Amino acid sequence: MTKESSDLYPVARLAAAQEATASAGLGALLLTPGPDLRYVTGYEALPLERLTCLALPAEGPAFLVVPRLELPAAEHSPAARLGIEFVPWDETDDPYALVAARLGGAGKVGRVGLADRMWAMQSLRFRDALPGAEQVLAGTVLRELRMRKSEAEVAALREAGAAIDAVHAQVPGFLRAGRTEREVGRDIAEAILAAGHTTVDFVIVGSGHNGASPHHELSDRIIQPGEPVVVDIGGQMPSGYCSDSTRVYSVGEPPKEFTRYYEVLQRAQEAACAAVRPGVSCESVDAAAREVIAAEGYGDYFIHRTGHGIGLETHEEPYIVAGNTEALAPGHAFSVEPGIYLPGEHGARIEDILVCTEEGGERLNHRPRELVIV
Amino acid sequence: MTKESSDLYPVARLAAAQEATASAGLGALLLTPGPDLRYVTGYEALPLERLTCLALPAEGPAFLVVPRLELPAAEHSPAARLGIEFVPWDETDDPYALVAARLGGAGKVGRVGLADRMWAMQSLRFRDALPGAEQVLAGTVLRELRMRKSEAEVAALREAGAAIDAVHAQVPGFLRAGRTEREVGRDIAEAILAAGHTTVDFVIVGSGHNGASPHHELSDRIIQPGEPVVVDIGGQMPSGYCSDSTRVYSVGEPPKEFTRYYEVLQRAQEAACAAVRPGVSCESVDAAAREVIAAEGYGDYFIHRTGHGIGLETHEEPYIVAGNTEALAPGHAFSVEPGIYLPGEHGARIEDILVCTEEGGERLNHRPRELVIV
Repeated sequence: MTKESSDLYPVARLAAAQEATASAGLGALLLTPGPDLRYVTGYEALPLERLTCLALPAEGPAFLVVPRLELPAAEHSPAARLGIEFVPWDETDDPYALVAARLGGAGKVGRVGLADRMWAMQSLRFRDALPGAEQVLAGTVLRELRMRKSEAEVAALREAGAAIDAVHAQVPGFLRAGRTEREVGRDIAEAILAAGHTTVDFVIVGSGHNGASPHHELSDRIIQPGEPVVVDIGGQMPSGYCSDSTRVYSVGEPPKEFTRYYEVLQRAQEAACAAVRPGVSCESVDAAAREVIAAEGYGDYFIHRTGHGIGLETHEEPYIVAGNTEALAPGHAFSVEPGIYLPGEHGARIEDILVCTEEGGERLNHRPRELVIV
Repeated sequence: MTKESSDLYPVARLAAAQEATASAGLGALLLTPGPDLRYVTGYEALPLERLTCLALPAEGPAFLVVPRLELPAAEHSPAARLGIEFVPWDETDDPYALVAARLGGAGKVGRVGLADRMWAMQSLRFRDALPGAEQVLAGTVLRELRMRKSEAEVAALREAGAAIDAVHAQVPGFLRAGRTEREVGRDIAEAILAAGHTTVDFVIVGSGHNGASPHHELSDRIIQPGEPVVVDIGGQMPSGYCSDSTRVYSVGEPPKEFTRYYEVLQRAQEAACAAVRPGVSCESVDAAAREVIAAEGYGDYFIHRTGHGIGLETHEEPYIVAGNTEALAPGHAFSVEPGIYLPGEHGARIEDILVCTEEGGERLNHRPRELVIV
């Protein structure tokens, strides 16, 4: 455990999560591998069919149920600092019954909070092992903690931002007419790893009309001269924190209408970033981008929310979307990524990650936002 | 849709899944992004917090609920061939209520089968949207279909096997004393992508005593002369099918005891592979490996099952484990990967993917199984 990761995953978080569990009236949290478990313990466990689960009762000691063959990995993980008991189970044991018995059964726990990403193959086994215990999401307990990024978490997101910026800096060298999206995507994926990410989470290369599909990924479509290309990429860093940034490139001079709405989009993205400050609602940041786009007649072509929170997950709270009245606070980190999509023609999106500070929004991505003509 | 992927994801599968749903007495399957959805439709949807879900009622037409911004991707996916209705929803809609209403409510569906990997944030929303509908796993319906690989699926696994073999062929060039596991792991990850995988699913480089932890991944430990290194790697191919193979390398001459038990391990792996044929139980394949290891006094050091099924998931049914009386049948594909682990010292594992044929087990990995001294 380095000093750095100890800052990122402080031991005190377990007690904070336990206190929040008690305050929310839950009997226990059950955290299987994924961002909730990693946030609380620092343990980057593999998501597998064999049950690994942190049981965190509202009162009394927490314990980590772990397949015996994962025990050495768990013992060498940051979870070892927490002073919790590790309970190994063997291939022919029933680990769900084991958790239930140790928690004192359904009558004792009452309501349990499941990791938001717990697989159904596990949540249904817990339902049967703890009959009558009401299942709710652990997110209801952990969201406030996870949303407010600490200084160390902001530093980890800043590092992730610099890494993905370094990849975008190389994209003009990968893009040229005659290559397929998939060929370009492969180069980008390798660059994402080379820039220090441990995983490639997504590589969107949307050329020409594929750019009008916001979540188009890669195809064997050959990029043509004069086509705009939307490149939206991200991965996870060794810290656990994620990167996500979109830029638009054009292989030669783009169509006139594209140039026109790209300028609108750039203003919209600026307006939304400028709207970020403590106390402002998420939906008003969304509205700041949307108003600029609507005023220019492109409102119907901005078909998604303006952004999503980011941290140990690429998409997490807070969501920058109409209807979300949550007030921004220092430490909230999220994307600002308006887009304009003309079906069958082309599209554009500009995306930066921002963190809300006392002074306003700090951008964590710094590549030029102007259209890059390659 | 190429001919190849049409063979891999035949249109007829939807009807087969519907029939199995009705036979199992379920009212509907609810399949969110992941291997179950991909198996039935061919659609490789992103697992996101926004709901994408195939609702497949036991009777009547299936439909795919999809966020509006994913609609173009869905329309360009193999799911478009199925002739099912796509039901887009907008950012401020409730897609769970939408699914429930279209299915006719909980009274009509009775029991619903959830994708095995559906996130709790979705299964609990479905529980609330369909109050009283009993939730079970879709796997109970789909397992028989998914376990019996078609010729096209076996071909896809064979292709995945060749790809990961090509990576193992390069590993001796990456390994040398003085490098860290992480440095070696980064080279391997890049080679996994370069060999044609779309994702790097896991890279285990366990040097020296780290080799004694079966699921140790990567660390900053520096590889020393004379150390065995366990390399267990895999990824997903564009087809959706996964690779997984383990080989052991030694950086210079390994310790004597290691050489002794490595020979035992190799015999155990051979014995288990030789035991594979239709009608033989999964647990007896496990026993075939275990008996060889136990007879030589290493039984306590073989701390995991012998293998796991593989296909669209790296770990799926059938599991090659004590207690699993399932009889192997042609088309079953799984790993045979016994291991011997001496805590604090070193360890070894040899892993191939096999497919059960009428004639016995066909190996899909072909790299030499002898210890490779680099």
